[in-house]
Amino acid sequence: MTAQHVTTQRLRFCDTDRLGHVNNAVYAVMLEAGRSELMDLAGLLDPAGGCAVVIVRLELDFLREMNWPGEVTIETAVHRIGTKSMHLRQHVSLGGEITARATSVLAVIDVATRRAVAIRPAWRESLAAYLVPDLT
Amino acid sequence: MTAQHVTTQRLRFCDTDRLGHVNNAVYAVMLEAGRSELMDLAGLLDPAGGCAVVIVRLELDFLREMNWPGEVTIETAVHRIGTKSMHLRQHVSLGGEITARATSVLAVIDVATRRAVAIRPAWRESLAAYLVPDLT
Amino acid sequence: MTAQHVTTQRLRFCDTDRLGHVNNAVYAVMLEAGRSELMDLAGLLDPAGGCAVVIVRLELDFLREMNWPGEVTIETAVHRIGTKSMHLRQHVSLGGEITARATSVLAVIDVATRRAVAIRPAWRESLAAYLVPDLT
Amino acid sequence: MTAQHVTTQRLRFCDTDRLGHVNNAVYAVMLEAGRSELMDLAGLLDPAGGCAVVIVRLELDFLREMNWPGEVTIETAVHRIGTKSMHLRQHVSLGGEITARATSVLAVIDVATRRAVAIRPAWRESLAAYLVPDLT
Repeated sequence: MTAQHVTTQRLRFCDTDRLGHVNNAVYAVMLEAGRSELMDLAGLLDPAGGCAVVIVRLELDFLREMNWPGEVTIETAVHRIGTKSMHLRQHVSLGGEITARATSVLAVIDVATRRAVAIRPAWRESLAAYLVPDLT
Repeated sequence: MTAQHVTTQRLRFCDTDRLGHVNNAVYAVMLEAGRSELMDLAGLLDPAGGCAVVIVRLELDFLREMNWPGEVTIETAVHRIGTKSMHLRQHVSLGGEITARATSVLAVIDVATRRAVAIRPAWRESLAAYLVPDLT
Repeated sequence: MTAQHVTTQRLRFCDTDRLGHVNNAVYAVMLEAGRSELMDLAGLLDPAGGCAVVIVRLELDFLREMNWPGEVTIETAVHRIGTKSMHLRQHVSLGGEITARATSVLAVIDVATRRAVAIRPAWRESLAAYLVPDLT
Repeated sequence: MTAQHVTTQRLRFCDTDRLGHVNNAVYAVMLEAGRSELMDLAGLLDPAGGCAVVIVRLELDFLREMNWPGEVTIETAVHRIGTKSMHLRQHVSLGGEITARATSVLAVIDVATRRAVAIRPAWRESLAAYLVPDLT
């Protein structure tokens, strides 16, 4: 059975801005926190491998304000694995309510050449544990 | 004649991450830096007005890596002004090359009720100076 | 019995910089995360009270590098409570090792006048629960 | 003749926090922005050199609040160059007023071993251009 990756992030006072709420760019930070933990668990961040995961596209819907203090939950699902890219779906939530929805496209690059490389079979296999096509 | 708003941001050392380049969330920060300056100039951030501008949706294409040190340019154009929302188009560039393209949807909220309010005629007029429908 | 306040913060990928480790300014963020939670628990951040806590001085010794991923622990003790200021001592640690030591001086300001106000008896009482003079 | 290094940073909207002003950790970011530009100019950040500059101690006096929008000036002077460490003095200012004063101790580390190395004669020579012992 597959399941989305779930992690949490405690909000920091400095995540707020002068509007009183959590700054919009922090939503992007939260999404990255979820993605990077999943990529690390799936073995794509092994520094010895000479590869790195980069984001190519982000679509982010801000659904609700968030306020400090609080503990944010980030759910990350692999939606689709292509030849050279991965499509993710993510939810950010606080206090049981979804505060943002996002989709992202990631690529793996060779850290020396900075060019995209093919998704290796071993990565594909470990990413498959997080394949939840219908996280919406 | 109308023209997009242009501002610059000097990269900070801490904008980088362990991949050696500028972190992806910093692109969102740069976009906000451009949007907020435009909104301030257009009079939408007047604290006495009881209103604040919030982002509802962001679409962000990461086109190139950016490296510290450097001075980033952010161009922001108003694409469309609706009844309660504004659509913006933005470019981030470094060294003469576009590094990211973004579209965003913004809304104005009443800071007391946190609900969206209609775009006032005075705002519409000042925003019109930045109406550049074809910034792509 | 009194005891230092303890909280945790999960490191975020973007806390790293191009040296590969957690950026030095993030240590200041971690320290603020600890201080602000303590001040919130002690009732000094009540927005209805018209007061805010600001930092006046920070001394920070960086003892060890920190690497993502990881969960940071922040211990915060009240060292001394003066008429208009509070002196705190803090430890940041990761994996059981202290990575930074800090002392800070805080003041409470009236949010309207932005001037320091006297520490109220009620605050003094609640802060006293965290009085640990010898956290070093 | 020697002179302190001077650079500027345009404040970003997200540099503010819910107190309405620039967050205290951003002062640490500004100080790093100044230090890192000076170190880069002085040749200590050459990636081919296998060395990196890290901060060992920071003393920071917060003198005034800062508000967005604005352009911050950061002055950085080398106060003393030891065998394995450098002592800097810094001022942050906004609108012609000093908003923070800081002293810091830096060390150069070998990026492979992560241990401090001696300040090389070539670095000492280039750093000497910024030796301003009395920036206070």
